[in-house]
Amino acid sequence: MAAEAAAIVVDWGTTSLRATLVDARGNELESLETSQGISSLNKGDHEEALMTTLSPWLSSHGALPIAALGMITSRNGWIEIPYVRCPAGPAELAAGSVRRSLRNGSDLVFLPGLTDPMRKPFPDVMRGEEIQVAGHGLADDGTIIIPGTHSKWAQVKDGRIDGFQTFVTGEIFALLLNNSFIARGATQPPVDDPEAYLWGLEEAKNSWAMLSLLFSARTGGLAGKLSANQLRSYVHGMVIGQEFRQARDAGWYSEGGKATIVGNDGLNDLYVVAANVFDLEIAMGDDDVLIRGALDVMRHTLS
Amino acid sequence: MAAEAAAIVVDWGTTSLRATLVDARGNELESLETSQGISSLNKGDHEEALMTTLSPWLSSHGALPIAALGMITSRNGWIEIPYVRCPAGPAELAAGSVRRSLRNGSDLVFLPGLTDPMRKPFPDVMRGEEIQVAGHGLADDGTIIIPGTHSKWAQVKDGRIDGFQTFVTGEIFALLLNNSFIARGATQPPVDDPEAYLWGLEEAKNSWAMLSLLFSARTGGLAGKLSANQLRSYVHGMVIGQEFRQARDAGWYSEGGKATIVGNDGLNDLYVVAANVFDLEIAMGDDDVLIRGALDVMRHTLS
Repeated sequence: MAAEAAAIVVDWGTTSLRATLVDARGNELESLETSQGISSLNKGDHEEALMTTLSPWLSSHGALPIAALGMITSRNGWIEIPYVRCPAGPAELAAGSVRRSLRNGSDLVFLPGLTDPMRKPFPDVMRGEEIQVAGHGLADDGTIIIPGTHSKWAQVKDGRIDGFQTFVTGEIFALLLNNSFIARGATQPPVDDPEAYLWGLEEAKNSWAMLSLLFSARTGGLAGKLSANQLRSYVHGMVIGQEFRQARDAGWYSEGGKATIVGNDGLNDLYVVAANVFDLEIAMGDDDVLIRGALDVMRHTLS
Repeated sequence: MAAEAAAIVVDWGTTSLRATLVDARGNELESLETSQGISSLNKGDHEEALMTTLSPWLSSHGALPIAALGMITSRNGWIEIPYVRCPAGPAELAAGSVRRSLRNGSDLVFLPGLTDPMRKPFPDVMRGEEIQVAGHGLADDGTIIIPGTHSKWAQVKDGRIDGFQTFVTGEIFALLLNNSFIARGATQPPVDDPEAYLWGLEEAKNSWAMLSLLFSARTGGLAGKLSANQLRSYVHGMVIGQEFRQARDAGWYSEGGKATIVGNDGLNDLYVVAANVFDLEIAMGDDDVLIRGALDVMRHTLS
């Protein structure tokens, strides 16, 4: 099996590094994760850190092409790579990639992020999600949802990502649960309550006044209607429901429409429930889209 | 002057106690503030704390009627007083007040909070703002805005507070500035930038997708359009602008309409600028509305 190793994909974020060793068909052979995110390294120390982390694989298999993506290509990373502009597919992402030879002879390919220059008031940005969408495949036009701390809604058109929009749903949820007066008092450790989640979604569907709706996390408790066990899921329903409502109003889908969820940040099941409440039919992408996308863009770069 | 003292108003919140000694006409004679909020006291310790704090005035002037309001009448305070229901004016608030004799013979009147049972999904609540509105006076029908961490928009009708709605604008602003990835990087100590504030208001006016709009605090920086000096005021404009947009959509005013700002939480100037952007004409209430309202309701209670 060792002889099959054909490439490495490194997803290098702010607080962690995840590396995957794959065969020529993109199947995972081995993977590892460290907490050596870019925030823990000084400028100039990245190559050493990467070589050390990957040394077991590199000494077994020799030089291998390595795709690196994530915050590693941001201003605070190893090298800042300009965002590629929408519309873009694998060819455009490859054209924006930066190739470098490591001291053991490996080709390292830094994959760029993507920007949507049409978004107001400022161009929107993503770094990593565009690789997942590319890995999912761009053959079919349609709406793609990538749930996350900063969820993305993207439009695929004519084989490219035509545009996208960010919703900071996950971060607002975390702020409300961890730092606010509004939603403090939720049971610890966290309790998930599917009915309370659905309740939050329904309330979000009926309200355009988000700054007022959020206060219901507090008034529900005062009214004795919302328990500490329900609070977390209710708040999650409110904010994800607001994302679906706002994404609909922004034109990303219509009632009775379809969308595909790509990526897996642990939120997909919740997003499927939300889509159902908002009458949006969901197809699920595969789990290995990041690897597939990274290999696809790297192949374009090295060819 | 000492002989004129006629009453004491105690605004007793979670983290502070503010007391004001007034004459028979409600004019302030002396005031004091301590950090002995209700969160620093155990059940049963409140009377002792109050008597100690007020002892200089009580020993000079003897027994005086004392109005107490704020979180002191909440579940975690001295005594929990049920919220009075809208519509309510001074008479209804007085009927919901609770009178108690202190050991020096002073009448202590706990003023209740107010609830709007018509608000969805749960009854809305305020505790203190209703006294400010009562102090402003209820002779004229109209919309009242009470800016704050949890801003209130209230409707006065036929001499009573007919209903109200809370917007958690100030808390979201604080979370974004102090705890988020979205708006971190704002200059410290805080810098106010009136133009950036106006910019945030304008962007909020044009966007119904708040969860997406908030990300512009980050993308503006990435695009080199929004500086660290501008960030705080831009974010403030976005969230206060969303409050005005949402309050308008919820029916609290129409373009070209009028409203009165009551209370003074340090935000009034910003709210006047926001109202101008949203074509809402503002009248300003007086500064002493809390004292006036507390004395008015206490008078109803003791008469």
